[in-house]
Amino acid sequence: MIQCAILGATGYTGIELAKILLRHPHVKLSCLTSRQDEPPELSLLIPEISKQTTLKLEKFNAAEVAKKSDIVFICLPHTEAMETAAHFYKAGKIVIDLSADFRLKDAKVYKEWYKHPHARKELLKEAVYGLPELNRRQIRSANLIANPGCYPTSAILGLLPLLSKNLIETRGIVIDSNSGVSGAGKKITASTFFGEVNENFKAYKVNAHQHMPEIQAALEEAAHGRVDFSFVPHLLPVHRGILSTIYAEKKKGVKKKEIFRAFEAAYGGEPFVRFKKDGEFPSLRDVQHTNFCDVGIAAEDSNGRVIVLSAIDNLLKGASGQAVQNMNIRCGFPEESGLVS
Amino acid sequence: MIQCAILGATGYTGIELAKILLRHPHVKLSCLTSRQDEPPELSLLIPEISKQTTLKLEKFNAAEVAKKSDIVFICLPHTEAMETAAHFYKAGKIVIDLSADFRLKDAKVYKEWYKHPHARKELLKEAVYGLPELNRRQIRSANLIANPGCYPTSAILGLLPLLSKNLIETRGIVIDSNSGVSGAGKKITASTFFGEVNENFKAYKVNAHQHMPEIQAALEEAAHGRVDFSFVPHLLPVHRGILSTIYAEKKKGVKKKEIFRAFEAAYGGEPFVRFKKDGEFPSLRDVQHTNFCDVGIAAEDSNGRVIVLSAIDNLLKGASGQAVQNMNIRCGFPEESGLVS
Amino acid sequence: MIQCAILGATGYTGIELAKILLRHPHVKLSCLTSRQDEPPELSLLIPEISKQTTLKLEKFNAAEVAKKSDIVFICLPHTEAMETAAHFYKAGKIVIDLSADFRLKDAKVYKEWYKHPHARKELLKEAVYGLPELNRRQIRSANLIANPGCYPTSAILGLLPLLSKNLIETRGIVIDSNSGVSGAGKKITASTFFGEVNENFKAYKVNAHQHMPEIQAALEEAAHGRVDFSFVPHLLPVHRGILSTIYAEKKKGVKKKEIFRAFEAAYGGEPFVRFKKDGEFPSLRDVQHTNFCDVGIAAEDSNGRVIVLSAIDNLLKGASGQAVQNMNIRCGFPEESGLVS
Amino acid sequence: MIQCAILGATGYTGIELAKILLRHPHVKLSCLTSRQDEPPELSLLIPEISKQTTLKLEKFNAAEVAKKSDIVFICLPHTEAMETAAHFYKAGKIVIDLSADFRLKDAKVYKEWYKHPHARKELLKEAVYGLPELNRRQIRSANLIANPGCYPTSAILGLLPLLSKNLIETRGIVIDSNSGVSGAGKKITASTFFGEVNENFKAYKVNAHQHMPEIQAALEEAAHGRVDFSFVPHLLPVHRGILSTIYAEKKKGVKKKEIFRAFEAAYGGEPFVRFKKDGEFPSLRDVQHTNFCDVGIAAEDSNGRVIVLSAIDNLLKGASGQAVQNMNIRCGFPEESGLVS
Repeated sequence: MIQCAILGATGYTGIELAKILLRHPHVKLSCLTSRQDEPPELSLLIPEISKQTTLKLEKFNAAEVAKKSDIVFICLPHTEAMETAAHFYKAGKIVIDLSADFRLKDAKVYKEWYKHPHARKELLKEAVYGLPELNRRQIRSANLIANPGCYPTSAILGLLPLLSKNLIETRGIVIDSNSGVSGAGKKITASTFFGEVNENFKAYKVNAHQHMPEIQAALEEAAHGRVDFSFVPHLLPVHRGILSTIYAEKKKGVKKKEIFRAFEAAYGGEPFVRFKKDGEFPSLRDVQHTNFCDVGIAAEDSNGRVIVLSAIDNLLKGASGQAVQNMNIRCGFPEESGLVS
Repeated sequence: MIQCAILGATGYTGIELAKILLRHPHVKLSCLTSRQDEPPELSLLIPEISKQTTLKLEKFNAAEVAKKSDIVFICLPHTEAMETAAHFYKAGKIVIDLSADFRLKDAKVYKEWYKHPHARKELLKEAVYGLPELNRRQIRSANLIANPGCYPTSAILGLLPLLSKNLIETRGIVIDSNSGVSGAGKKITASTFFGEVNENFKAYKVNAHQHMPEIQAALEEAAHGRVDFSFVPHLLPVHRGILSTIYAEKKKGVKKKEIFRAFEAAYGGEPFVRFKKDGEFPSLRDVQHTNFCDVGIAAEDSNGRVIVLSAIDNLLKGASGQAVQNMNIRCGFPEESGLVS
Repeated sequence: MIQCAILGATGYTGIELAKILLRHPHVKLSCLTSRQDEPPELSLLIPEISKQTTLKLEKFNAAEVAKKSDIVFICLPHTEAMETAAHFYKAGKIVIDLSADFRLKDAKVYKEWYKHPHARKELLKEAVYGLPELNRRQIRSANLIANPGCYPTSAILGLLPLLSKNLIETRGIVIDSNSGVSGAGKKITASTFFGEVNENFKAYKVNAHQHMPEIQAALEEAAHGRVDFSFVPHLLPVHRGILSTIYAEKKKGVKKKEIFRAFEAAYGGEPFVRFKKDGEFPSLRDVQHTNFCDVGIAAEDSNGRVIVLSAIDNLLKGASGQAVQNMNIRCGFPEESGLVS
Repeated sequence: MIQCAILGATGYTGIELAKILLRHPHVKLSCLTSRQDEPPELSLLIPEISKQTTLKLEKFNAAEVAKKSDIVFICLPHTEAMETAAHFYKAGKIVIDLSADFRLKDAKVYKEWYKHPHARKELLKEAVYGLPELNRRQIRSANLIANPGCYPTSAILGLLPLLSKNLIETRGIVIDSNSGVSGAGKKITASTFFGEVNENFKAYKVNAHQHMPEIQAALEEAAHGRVDFSFVPHLLPVHRGILSTIYAEKKKGVKKKEIFRAFEAAYGGEPFVRFKKDGEFPSLRDVQHTNFCDVGIAAEDSNGRVIVLSAIDNLLKGASGQAVQNMNIRCGFPEESGLVS
């Protein structure tokens, strides 16, 4: 059986990933590591685990990981993942990197947004951006998969059919996104303090979030040309989920019917995108604890706008669920393995 | 001392209004009515009230109200307020109507959006739209004040300086708004059920909310011309507050500096609008339990967009606080009376 | 493969049960019914379900259910379950009733607390109270299993070892319980309104909750004698989970060590009770979305009190998870089947 | 006009106090200090304050404070307040200390629970414990007022009439308390992290909280003898409020009627205790943002127990509101001044 390691297993994405891999029918979770000297007991991190589990969280040791794994999931913070990913990639493992380190093709853009030079530039072109709905074919043979960010997943899936079918203007797009607090990870800071978040709502990094170049690259790939958009993320007083409300201008003459058909064509066969009927819209509730992206559209022939609502669970389709979906594609497993009941 | 009546005092806006008027230094709250046959004890509605208060909630009786009041605040649902407002207006009272019934000038538009014919069309032109930052002069002598809606207050205050100074394109404006649950009033429905709202977030009435014509009318008045915008309201899992994120395209050649100057010029002298410094943005927390509208701007000369964030307490600046501000203007009291500590 | 039906599948417990049975390795979920004339689509109730599922929610029809099932789970409200349970029991099915209808042995007590005469008194003595930690042996051969209430599960598991080993006084026990809102089901009432629950906390049915006789019966069975206790349930502004804080007086001479040993002896071999180390206490977080009951003890030789904290997920160990645990015991499956990853 | 200083004005209690004193009709808030080198702008801490306010937050300077104040409110953490309180007390000011430093009479007990020797033992006997319902007479002439803790206020007010009238057994009392997160102040720690508190509930410092000796001293003073109780505080996922559920055994022969009469006699004339009718119980909602303590009783002649529910706003009656109540008593102002609308 294929063996999987998770590096950085104590964060939210590592924990979600471990939960999925433990119930996955085709792989074995064989190794969980932490950068802490004395990693906590696994049952503290994953209370769902039964008393019988014997798997232990270990301090990271590259040789041990290599010995125990065929696939290495990297749940380290960006800038800390690149060397580790490169190491296991060169050691012949399949590497699925949940950090941002291999998502951008241009090392200069990386440095500009992440304030850190990229130490493994030579691998940027090797990495495949792991959004199955965009790159399923390339993922099938990729050994270095850059798992997409949470905001980008929700934004790109909301716009892909519109841009690839040339249905909207590529200027003036608005992506208004709203995320639960788990998107910020387990860092204990003033902005994740209960007294700050509870009963509150606010924007942050207004039109300046580091996920913008990642969104831009994917949108421009779909549009085969320049795309100009605004992006404002907001912090919701909930634990998990992202809902993006996206506004665009229809190209002249584009009808509502064409828009709905484009989404149906793009997503009808997708196992993890659910396209809503006319008049229905997604909510966080419907996608929490699932790997689905729910998409709903408001478009009328009487005006020039199209509005797309797109919802995901930021820890699943926006991180660990999508990572497993990528693994399933890469390994030839049914794409839903481990991800549906 | 001027005497005030509140009709429909058991809803959220009636209660907030009563709390303000009870501590207002220049008026006396003399009459509180309910449409219920046996109105509850006032202390159940306003636990802040000391044990000594003797004011009682009464079943509505027009003659009693007329006897006891110079100013009549109407906190009835839309379609139910129009006749009552007309009655007291004709009886010579100053009427401040918190419903939507006199906000639109066009009875046809009213009927289209509120699904109810307007029974007092002749008064629509008499009514003054009570947004002090737009209509302070007219409010000074108005006897029928249509107190603005909560979404409109936040949206209009975010756009006024841009439109009146001709700094943005009037097409393709996006108003993305997010409201706490108290905006829906005290109705107990599937959409205000704890199990539905808690840990959830979703849009509703996508580009189809009845506040759209009200927003449009005010924006077009400011712009002296047609304005085209999209509006999507969302439901936040919090009790009170509205935050709107507004996106527009700058007119060619408009500089960041001009935008900031326009807001400073418009709001520097306003007692209840606080314009944030460059790089600072509002949050619900800062405006909850206050009559302030906080406004922050993101605009760079390097791109064509301007983004405005605007936050209010929907029950205060979005309803009862603004109603008292209107009364203060109408009666010649200091505008902050009863509204600041 | 054994086939399972769920009657009343649209409530919280029905939905949780369906989710477990869909992933259960040894049974097939073959039938889901509702009392509604037009049951909603299953995907609306269980968004976790993949797009491929073909199972449909049907309007209840006894013959259909009988044809399609070996085991019938009843998720109907109390007083409505008794006839249905009796019907399928007599038809030779294994019936697991999640309502309160067969939990009490005494029809008079039932009538007193549920304000409804018991129509199937003759079956009360046939029914086995399905708390595995108390009645595992009887459950193995029971065809009518009365699945315990949520408060009783948490209260009884906190007290069982103390009473059965005669370590505490049987008078003056205090059970202070706190439940998430899902305990009230999906009823949309004033007490489950977001505006009432959010940022609030209060007691209800103070020392008068209908779960009291159920708790009493189990405690007295364990103690082989009368037990006297107070019980106050409170409503927490969270979706799921119950935490009970239980206070009792140690019998003279009882040492801390004996108390800890009694819990270890009682629960060391239990698959779904986790007994905490000295100084550690349970939280809702640790048991949410699991079938575990976590129990922690505060006891010192320097004073006469013992304090037990006991936490469960009210929808799992307090309802649907326990129902599946009972099925597993009854059918000879591993007790954890479907309940752990 | 009497001038007031607040030391430590950036914490929750300092902010609440400033808000009250700013609207208080008989005193002037003249000085606000912080231990920070560059105190933030007041409007960041108190957004309710209008744009016109000129008061500024200053770095603490004892001479400045002395010059500007007749009354000094100390909102410093315990162990840091004692020297400052002593200084201003000796300088002839009226000192109201919101910390725990002068609440206990016995320096040894202080050291045991606060892990810090008391540096001003000689003043412990000078200090008056500022619970008006217990010590109003002494407060009238006190120059060093130890303002009670939040849990003690709620617990003591729930038990005072029962103990002073000798209606309950003094052993085996249970005080089960539940507090909002603001009780922990503005410290940003793992236990005040949104991801930890939200949708969670748990006990902490089980029967080991530093407020226990304070509760004990007041209860024993009321009972004129030893009192033995258990105390378990829990953390609620709400911002403010404490609800305590208190369980005691009635003395033999005590009737329900006597219990209700004792509470009516004790609290009928109290401006800030509201005693509920039989069958009604308090909720956090009713006391939030007020200085009231609401008390409800469950007692039946058919059993031996009495259950008291007591709710306060931890930042008002549990801290800053009570401090102002004490000031009002000390200065001869109407007791409600600044505390009711």
